[in-house]
Amino acid sequence: MKALLLVAHGSRRKQSNDEVVLLAEKLKRQCSQQYSIVNAAFLELADVLIPDGIKQCATEGATSIVVLPYFLNSGRHVIEDVPGIVEDCIGQYPDIKISLAPHLGASDLMMDLIISSAESVKN
Amino acid sequence: MKALLLVAHGSRRKQSNDEVVLLAEKLKRQCSQQYSIVNAAFLELADVLIPDGIKQCATEGATSIVVLPYFLNSGRHVIEDVPGIVEDCIGQYPDIKISLAPHLGASDLMMDLIISSAESVKN
Repeated sequence: MKALLLVAHGSRRKQSNDEVVLLAEKLKRQCSQQYSIVNAAFLELADVLIPDGIKQCATEGATSIVVLPYFLNSGRHVIEDVPGIVEDCIGQYPDIKISLAPHLGASDLMMDLIISSAESVKN
Repeated sequence: MKALLLVAHGSRRKQSNDEVVLLAEKLKRQCSQQYSIVNAAFLELADVLIPDGIKQCATEGATSIVVLPYFLNSGRHVIEDVPGIVEDCIGQYPDIKISLAPHLGASDLMMDLIISSAESVKN
């Protein structure tokens, strides 16, 4: 059973974290063929941190988990913090294949997304 | 002459800001049919702020500028700060049509981008 764990930075503004949770719920509905489980977790400043998110996926029966950093830039969080926490979790779940996807900003589709957003403005 | 101004938050980490500038340069090469001018600017913590970015587009001969907030979440920056600064600039350039695009995270393509990033992991 494949799981996708969307990992955002987390914000003191609860509404901002809720937005990521809602996005994960929307993803769950739309990509149920690829991922039976979709959850959101945060690096900091939120209730559900990365280890909690991985635990949640495991509890729901995940046999593999793709952790996707929902970050635009490849700063310290993307390069060190998220990989470090995921690495620690890997040792705790020897029966689950836990992988780290490239952060969102690294996607080749980013250019299309930018152009599409810009073109949505009638100018 | 249409211009696209990519507006990121800005970071104390110069490398992170450089990444956005590089993205704007890549966009300029790839979407020259839609936008003759593509520049990057920042809300804070960088040399080129939003008014500087708009001025730069104007100097390069822009007749219209689409300002695109390169933000994932609709926090205060997206809801108040960027629109407020853009609004101030609109008054200063009466001959240029300056529009604000929805922030990146609002794009319908975001789901595709997430799935594509997750699927790039061999799992």
